[in-house]
Amino acid sequence: MKKLRIGLADTTFARADMAAFAIDEIERKFPKMKIEFVRRTVPGIKDLPVECKLLYVRDKCDIVMAFGMVGKEQVDKTCGHEASLGIQWAKLMLGKHIIEVFVHEDEGKDEADLLSIFEDRSRKHAINAVLIATNQSELTKMAGKGLRQGRQSVGRIGV
Amino acid sequence: MKKLRIGLADTTFARADMAAFAIDEIERKFPKMKIEFVRRTVPGIKDLPVECKLLYVRDKCDIVMAFGMVGKEQVDKTCGHEASLGIQWAKLMLGKHIIEVFVHEDEGKDEADLLSIFEDRSRKHAINAVLIATNQSELTKMAGKGLRQGRQSVGRIGV
Amino acid sequence: MKKLRIGLADTTFARADMAAFAIDEIERKFPKMKIEFVRRTVPGIKDLPVECKLLYVRDKCDIVMAFGMVGKEQVDKTCGHEASLGIQWAKLMLGKHIIEVFVHEDEGKDEADLLSIFEDRSRKHAINAVLIATNQSELTKMAGKGLRQGRQSVGRIGV
Amino acid sequence: MKKLRIGLADTTFARADMAAFAIDEIERKFPKMKIEFVRRTVPGIKDLPVECKLLYVRDKCDIVMAFGMVGKEQVDKTCGHEASLGIQWAKLMLGKHIIEVFVHEDEGKDEADLLSIFEDRSRKHAINAVLIATNQSELTKMAGKGLRQGRQSVGRIGV
Amino acid sequence: MKKLRIGLADTTFARADMAAFAIDEIERKFPKMKIEFVRRTVPGIKDLPVECKLLYVRDKCDIVMAFGMVGKEQVDKTCGHEASLGIQWAKLMLGKHIIEVFVHEDEGKDEADLLSIFEDRSRKHAINAVLIATNQSELTKMAGKGLRQGRQSVGRIGV
Repeated sequence: MKKLRIGLADTTFARADMAAFAIDEIERKFPKMKIEFVRRTVPGIKDLPVECKLLYVRDKCDIVMAFGMVGKEQVDKTCGHEASLGIQWAKLMLGKHIIEVFVHEDEGKDEADLLSIFEDRSRKHAINAVLIATNQSELTKMAGKGLRQGRQSVGRIGV
Repeated sequence: MKKLRIGLADTTFARADMAAFAIDEIERKFPKMKIEFVRRTVPGIKDLPVECKLLYVRDKCDIVMAFGMVGKEQVDKTCGHEASLGIQWAKLMLGKHIIEVFVHEDEGKDEADLLSIFEDRSRKHAINAVLIATNQSELTKMAGKGLRQGRQSVGRIGV
Repeated sequence: MKKLRIGLADTTFARADMAAFAIDEIERKFPKMKIEFVRRTVPGIKDLPVECKLLYVRDKCDIVMAFGMVGKEQVDKTCGHEASLGIQWAKLMLGKHIIEVFVHEDEGKDEADLLSIFEDRSRKHAINAVLIATNQSELTKMAGKGLRQGRQSVGRIGV
Repeated sequence: MKKLRIGLADTTFARADMAAFAIDEIERKFPKMKIEFVRRTVPGIKDLPVECKLLYVRDKCDIVMAFGMVGKEQVDKTCGHEASLGIQWAKLMLGKHIIEVFVHEDEGKDEADLLSIFEDRSRKHAINAVLIATNQSELTKMAGKGLRQGRQSVGRIGV
Repeated sequence: MKKLRIGLADTTFARADMAAFAIDEIERKFPKMKIEFVRRTVPGIKDLPVECKLLYVRDKCDIVMAFGMVGKEQVDKTCGHEASLGIQWAKLMLGKHIIEVFVHEDEGKDEADLLSIFEDRSRKHAINAVLIATNQSELTKMAGKGLRQGRQSVGRIGV
């Protein structure tokens, strides 16, 4: 069986090692799958879109994840928006998914809470990345069910 | 007669099964049409644009619908905007329509009202999707008439 | 003489038949010109950009107008912005003008005022569309003169 | 010596003849240069990006300037933003500079002040346009020096 | 060994010579590396994206840096956002990194503080630029460590 090549783009700006959570989760949940990780680090979130493109075009990854932290200031939020638009263009140019795992520094009540968001979101989206690359119909079983990454899921309305 | 191939992209984030409403509506309103549905689920709304592109390019759909829910927080609204811009690019790259069916979580007065918006908007846009793919001149009969999806139509001014 | 083929894209969402004003104005002001109108209706303003592209690429129009109404809510204004960005991309991809005739539902003091804006803007931009397609140098005579569509023109400063 | 072909795109919406200031300035400052002006007028600022593209692609200009006025209302500011994004795409598609000369109607204290901004910005950017097309290294002598167009320059910090 | 060709795009609008700090830092930190600098100056930040593209396409640079200052007013912040989106498109079109070094005029408590931000950010990102072009794996050693350019780094959460 062909190895699944997973690209991980992350930043020096973020305040947690999100890619490490993702790698750990994938190794636990898919122990029999042959997986190769390609990791590339850039300074900040606005450097992620083109790095994700390179992970597909140059490194021939099968699926790519982009890990970033959006800072607390308004200027940081604008950067996050620009990075997300860049990721949209990258996806559409390539015709490929990029699993965007962004955490906002002001999402957490305190540092411990923020760290738990980093971990939960990175782990859950790592599963999403593998499913999209290998078995997307699994996701349809959860369609419209109010799933959340980073926090507990909220469920379907009226159920 | 050739089958009409309808692509449905939806998310695990949404809190209702919008695609199911659309399928039900199309089967009721166009019982004699040969239709095939291709459904693909992604995690969130920002994953919809490229999935829609794939439904055209890979799955050779004739028309594609994108179902998503925009959460209540400001960060969710920004995501919704990014997803909508992605859908704009996807449409223009492809030269194809994508019927965007987005519901904002804060549109409803309560959960029952929100659910009725999910259902009404999904059903009405399902009809729009089929008309655009098969008989767009039907829509011109309703041009400028203040139609609404999700709520009651408001009508033409001064009529 | 070759017929001028004018594409008109409009929506079922708008609360006035803007395209009808434009057609009437063009027929009055250019009675001797051979003109063919191609009209296509879509649900909302975000469906206009790709429809305009199709009017050029599929229907071989010489000039295309996009008629839309932007609703009163913040979410509508965001939709209007997304549609306008889509129209920018469409124009640049094609290297063709698209005359965007958008009316904001909250521009009018009341319904009668709003209707007069719909009519005035549609009529004046219809003239602009024909001039751009046939005789753009006419517009240079009015450069920097503070012309307005929808309301009275404001004129050049200090004149 | 080959003529320098300068494209000037302007609007009927603006309340001053900005292109005339630019032409006058270029003729004064570069009296020995062989220059040909190609001027095209469009209704509003959102029509400028594709007109600039046409000035390069159809009219074979060497450098292109876009003159526009952004109105006072919020909707005008959104239009200005959309036009500026369109100009960004046009530049990147073409790999060519477009000198954007936009004045905001609310920049001036009064009409006389506003007119002086129209004139100063148009004249200074006209020089920038010629330098970029013919002798860009002249601009490097002024790098980081706090130059302003429309108002007096503010200078380098701490100098 | 092949020379490393570093493109530096800067503006006459900024109030400090950011490119000079970058050149100085690179010469200090990489004294044995064969480096050639190509510097191009443009009027303002919105002229940077296409200049960066030209530094890659016309000047065959290996890595490109974009230096700009975002002014204090709301209109300046909008310009900064437009420039950053332009840089996103440029990167994705080219499949190349562009190291964006933008300083906001209102980041500093006073002029001396602002100047220190100009210098620190320019120097640190100059190192990032060289590492991305020559030895990107060095950055992975600093992944998720809360690095900052312009200010002191903040570190990883909980460490």
